Amino acid sequence: MSEPKLPTRAEDFNEWYNQLVLRAELADYAPVRGCMIVRPYGWALWENIQAALDRRFKATGHLNAAFPLLIPKSFLEREAAHVEGFSPELAVVTIGGNKELEEPLVVRPTSETVIGHAYAKWIQSYRDLPVLINQWCSVVRWELRTKLFLRTLEFFWQEGHTAHATFEEAEAETRQMLDVYTDFAVTEAALPVIPGLKSESERFAGADRTYSIEAMMGDGKALQAGTSHNLGQNFAKAFDIQFLDRDGERKFCWTTSWGLSTRIIGAIIMVHGDDQGLVLPPRLAPFQVVIVPIYKNDAERAQVMEAVVGLQRGLTASGVRVKLDTRDGLTPGFKFNDWEMRGVPLRIEIGPKDIAKRTVVLARRDRPGKEGKTCVDWDSLGAAVAATLDDIQAALLTRATAFRDANIHDVATYDDFKAAVETGFARVWWAGDAALEQQIKEETKATLRCIPLAQPGETGTCLMTGRPTPTQAIFARAY
Amino acid sequence: MSEPKLPTRAEDFNEWYNQLVLRAELADYAPVRGCMIVRPYGWALWENIQAALDRRFKATGHLNAAFPLLIPKSFLEREAAHVEGFSPELAVVTIGGNKELEEPLVVRPTSETVIGHAYAKWIQSYRDLPVLINQWCSVVRWELRTKLFLRTLEFFWQEGHTAHATFEEAEAETRQMLDVYTDFAVTEAALPVIPGLKSESERFAGADRTYSIEAMMGDGKALQAGTSHNLGQNFAKAFDIQFLDRDGERKFCWTTSWGLSTRIIGAIIMVHGDDQGLVLPPRLAPFQVVIVPIYKNDAERAQVMEAVVGLQRGLTASGVRVKLDTRDGLTPGFKFNDWEMRGVPLRIEIGPKDIAKRTVVLARRDRPGKEGKTCVDWDSLGAAVAATLDDIQAALLTRATAFRDANIHDVATYDDFKAAVETGFARVWWAGDAALEQQIKEETKATLRCIPLAQPGETGTCLMTGRPTPTQAIFARAY
Repeated sequence: MSEPKLPTRAEDFNEWYNQLVLRAELADYAPVRGCMIVRPYGWALWENIQAALDRRFKATGHLNAAFPLLIPKSFLEREAAHVEGFSPELAVVTIGGNKELEEPLVVRPTSETVIGHAYAKWIQSYRDLPVLINQWCSVVRWELRTKLFLRTLEFFWQEGHTAHATFEEAEAETRQMLDVYTDFAVTEAALPVIPGLKSESERFAGADRTYSIEAMMGDGKALQAGTSHNLGQNFAKAFDIQFLDRDGERKFCWTTSWGLSTRIIGAIIMVHGDDQGLVLPPRLAPFQVVIVPIYKNDAERAQVMEAVVGLQRGLTASGVRVKLDTRDGLTPGFKFNDWEMRGVPLRIEIGPKDIAKRTVVLARRDRPGKEGKTCVDWDSLGAAVAATLDDIQAALLTRATAFRDANIHDVATYDDFKAAVETGFARVWWAGDAALEQQIKEETKATLRCIPLAQPGETGTCLMTGRPTPTQAIFARAY
Repeated sequence: MSEPKLPTRAEDFNEWYNQLVLRAELADYAPVRGCMIVRPYGWALWENIQAALDRRFKATGHLNAAFPLLIPKSFLEREAAHVEGFSPELAVVTIGGNKELEEPLVVRPTSETVIGHAYAKWIQSYRDLPVLINQWCSVVRWELRTKLFLRTLEFFWQEGHTAHATFEEAEAETRQMLDVYTDFAVTEAALPVIPGLKSESERFAGADRTYSIEAMMGDGKALQAGTSHNLGQNFAKAFDIQFLDRDGERKFCWTTSWGLSTRIIGAIIMVHGDDQGLVLPPRLAPFQVVIVPIYKNDAERAQVMEAVVGLQRGLTASGVRVKLDTRDGLTPGFKFNDWEMRGVPLRIEIGPKDIAKRTVVLARRDRPGKEGKTCVDWDSLGAAVAATLDDIQAALLTRATAFRDANIHDVATYDDFKAAVETGFARVWWAGDAALEQQIKEETKATLRCIPLAQPGETGTCLMTGRPTPTQAIFARAY
C-alpha cells in the first residue's frame, strides 16, 4: 500500500510534477505518444474551471456552439502567417471509409479558419454584429516534447471567436476577455497572473496583437495560462467575412479569438503544490472537504459513521463539496496522507472522543501540522467550514503573490538578467526587437513573456540597446 | 425579410425537417461533406439535454473523464465483431507533424478499445470495481448518406463505460442506464419511447446484448434514441481487463457501454414539431418564454419596455429562461411567427393597453390561435408561467403518446404488416431469426426495432414462422 515518497520540489521539480499528476490520478498517459487521459479527479477539476469561465463568458454575452473537428487542409493555407505557424504541427486524415480522400483533412489545431468560413456565410449586415461565440472542445497539435497538461498532442480548451464592425470594438473585446481570464485566474485559481501584451515574435500565427496572462511556477519559470488575440482583418480577408455597414458600404469584419486550456491545471499544480502533493484552491477543488472517520472496532465505527453522515448531509446541503472516506482496511494516517497528496483543502477528523464532546477537528491543507488544526463544535461547523475555505482561498493567493513578487528581479545589466532568469522573472526596460529577443533566448533560454499592462509611467534605459524607453518587459524561462 | 414558407409535414416531411433545422438556426452544414456545425440555439438545447442527463449519471454514481480522440488502428482489430462493424466507417490519420506515421491512428468512432486499454492498467483487484465512467465528446464515423443531427460524419454524444466483477452486475448496470435514458426521454424530452432489447442482427458490434429506446417520429418512422450494451467479457478478453477476486483468483471483468447523442435533437424536432416549426419541451427549451413588446411609437416603446424589463427580471429570478425580443424594425406579427418557428413554448405579448390594465397575454406554442391565449395579471404572472410550462410539458407527452399508440398496429398477417409499416409501427408475435429479419427488410424496408421490455405475458403465433411464441417484437422503417 505504501508507495515510495514523492521527490521533493527542491530535489527534482520536474519529476515531482510528473509523479504527482499520476499519483493524484489527475491524468494518465494514453497509448498514442503524447496523448493524455484526463482521469475523473482531473476532469472534475476541469469541470469546475469550465463552470467558472462559462459563467463569465455568458455574463459578457457569449454563446456556446460546436464547430467541426475536421477542416479541409486548404483552409489553413488561406492565411499566410497562420499556415506558417501551424503546418508543422498538423495531424492529417487522408483516408475515410477505406478510401483515399481527394482533399486531406486536418484535425483542428485551432478553429479560426473553419469558423471564419461559417461567419462569412452568417454575417450579412451590421445588424448581425457582433457575433460572440465560444466552443469547448479538444484540439490536436503534433508536439514533439510532451508533458501531461502542459503540452500534449491533444488538449482540452475553450476557444472564443468573435466578429465586430470596427477595430475599436474588436480591441475592446480582446481586452475584455483578457480581463475575464485575469479575474478567473486570480479569483478562482488563486493565481496572481500578470496580464500583458506579447511581442511580435511571440504572437499567435495570424494575429495583429496577442495578449496573455503569465503565471510564475514554483520553480520560478513562467507559464502562459491564457491568450486573447486581436486578429485584425486578417482572417476576415482570408475568408471573406464582409458586412453591409450602416453607410451602405461592404466592409471586412474585425475578428478576435481567445483561449484557455487544461494547461491551467499544470499551473495550479506548480504554483500551489508542496512536497506533500497537490494543494487545490477551494473554489475549484473537486472535494473542498474530506471527512475521515476514526474508529478501532465495529462498535466505534457504527457510532462514528452515524454522526459523520449527518455532518456530511448538513455540509452538502449548504453547498460544500464533501467527500466521506469510508474505505475499510486503511488507517486514518494513511487516509490523511492520501488526501493531502490529492490536495483537498480541508480535512475533518472525527473519532469517539469527538463524538462525546460533539466536536470535530478541522485540518487545513495549506498549514501543515498542529498550526493548521482547530477544534470546532458541531453546531458551528457549517460556518467554520465556509470561513476556513474562504481563508484558505485568500491565503493561497497571498502566498503565491508574495512568492512571485520576491522572484521578480528588476535588473539593469545583462549579467544580473542572466542570474535572475535562473530562479525567477527578470523585469527590464525594453526597446529591443525580435533579433535581440532571439539572441537572449539563445544565450539564456529566457523569452519575452509579456509587456505588462501595468507600466510604471516613467522612462528607463533599455537593457540591450541602451536607448531610453517608457516600456518595461518581463523575461523568463517558460513551460 | 419574409422567407418562403416551410413545406408542410404532409407535403414533404423530409424537406420540412431539413429546412426547419437551418431556419431555426439549430445547425448548419460544415465545409467537409456530412459534417455539422451546431449553432448557438441548437447547442443551448444540447447543453440542457447534457445537464439533465449528467445529473442522472452522477446520481447513479458515475464520474466524467476524457479519453483520447486518436486510437491506434490495431486496437480496433483486437475484438473481432467490433472491427467488422466499424472498419468500413473509419477516418484515419496517416500523417502527423509532416511525417508518415508508423502506425495509422483512427479518429475514435466509439471508445471501448482505448478505454478498455486504460481499464486493464487501472483495475487490479475487486476493490477497484465497479469502475463507472462517462465522457462527453464527439466521434467520427464515415457515413455515406447524412442528415443534420440524425446521421453525420462527426456527432456529439456521451459514452458511458463501466467494468464489473460479475455478469449480473454488468447486466444490472446495462438495464439501469436504459432506465435512465427512458426516464430522461419521457420526463425531459416528452418522448414516449419504447425500451426494449435489440435482435442479434441489430446489436452493437462487440456486445452480447444491446438495449435501446425507440421513438416514433411524426411520419410514423422509428428513431433509435439511445442504446445500452452489455459487452460480456468480449472487450475484457480483447484488452486483458482482469482483476484479483475475493477468492484469490484472477478473472476477466464484465463491461458495459451506453450512449446517447445529438440524434435526440432530431427526435425532438420530428416528434413535437408542426407545420409552423419547432415545438420544444419546456424542460429543455433554451428559452422557455419569449416576451414580445408591442408599441407604435417611441413614447409607447419607453412605457412598454420599462414594464417588460421588470417582468423579465421577476421571471428570471424565479428560474425561468426568458428571452426579451428587443429587435427594432420588426413587426410583432413577424416576431410571433419567428419565435413560433423556433419553438419557444410560451410567448408573452404586452402593449400599452395591457400596461394600463397591468396584464399580459400568454400564448401557448402547442395550442395555436385564440384557444392557447390567456390574459394574466402581473401579480400572478410567475405562478401562471410556471403552471403553464408544466402543462405544456405534460400536453406534449400526452399528444405524442396518443399519436404513437394510434400508429402502433398489432398485425397478424404479412399483408397487414406491409400496410402497417407504411405509416407506423407493426407489433407482431415473433419467433423468427436473422434471415427472416433480412427478408422482411428487403421486402418492406422495415427492421426489428426492439423486443419491448413490456411483454403481454401471453403467447401468440409468430408472424413468419407460425410457431407459438411468448414474444412480441416491433418492426418499423427507421431513421
